[in-house]
Amino acid sequence: MIKPLKKTIVSVLVLNEANVLTRVVSMFGRRGFNIESLTVSPTNDPNLSRITLVFYGTDQVIHQIITQTKKLEVVKEVYILNRENSLYRELLLVKVNYEKSELSEIKEIVDIYRAKIVDLSKSSLIIEITGAPEKINGFMDVLKDYDISEVCRTGVTGIESNTRKFK
Amino acid sequence: MIKPLKKTIVSVLVLNEANVLTRVVSMFGRRGFNIESLTVSPTNDPNLSRITLVFYGTDQVIHQIITQTKKLEVVKEVYILNRENSLYRELLLVKVNYEKSELSEIKEIVDIYRAKIVDLSKSSLIIEITGAPEKINGFMDVLKDYDISEVCRTGVTGIESNTRKFK
Repeated sequence: MIKPLKKTIVSVLVLNEANVLTRVVSMFGRRGFNIESLTVSPTNDPNLSRITLVFYGTDQVIHQIITQTKKLEVVKEVYILNRENSLYRELLLVKVNYEKSELSEIKEIVDIYRAKIVDLSKSSLIIEITGAPEKINGFMDVLKDYDISEVCRTGVTGIESNTRKFK
Repeated sequence: MIKPLKKTIVSVLVLNEANVLTRVVSMFGRRGFNIESLTVSPTNDPNLSRITLVFYGTDQVIHQIITQTKKLEVVKEVYILNRENSLYRELLLVKVNYEKSELSEIKEIVDIYRAKIVDLSKSSLIIEITGAPEKINGFMDVLKDYDISEVCRTGVTGIESNTRKFK
């Protein structure tokens, strides 16, 4: 029986030292995990960085890797972000080459998604959009009909919510 | 003479294979680089991922590491994002514990920064803000007077702009 791969988002708080990132990433890399996105960035404590990983694995493998990551001395905290009670966000910048006749269509799509055109030249524009990964994917799907020249995504960051109100 | 460390943003397009991330990250890690932020995420080509790194180094070291990264077979493209003609964005989620009397103040700060309150419970709220790293840092500076319980940043992504209009 093939065990289902689950998309999992893990938040890891680590000491802000050289090589810490390499150690955590190589632990995930060694196992041939398919990391979909990874972000590392400072926290409000200058000694700590946060790594957020989105990857696919079976329940067993996910459990294993979290147990092992917790054992690393440089790791202060590891937790799985629960889809039910967490907020996820990522940011996308996408550059589109356009014909004059397409501009108002594109602008409409941008407005519907509450995205923003942040740069506009005669033949290309850059759109910024933020939201849950599903929203970003939906937006990219609609944009497929246009001449996309570049896509930059930040990858997902997530935070536990105290309510379910704004999901 | 101590050579100045320059903040540098590098964009690396890599094949979307297991271990690629580990190889690129460990190359930067080996040299004890201080990586401030790193993001990895899918592009519009399913075979390619983009790694965006923000780090500090002297001109010489930056040049070296880029030359070496280019030599990796899994690397398709490496370029330094030029501050003059690129757009940078990152996304921050921050959770703040608040007293009732503070809520309208916080809401004002959020409005001035065109941020958003995306979650609100009786005693805590989550703010989402996007922008250039300088804007995000400014916002965090203003928020310091409040009881911040959690900070999640995506790290920076950047794209070359064709204009200087919207910077």
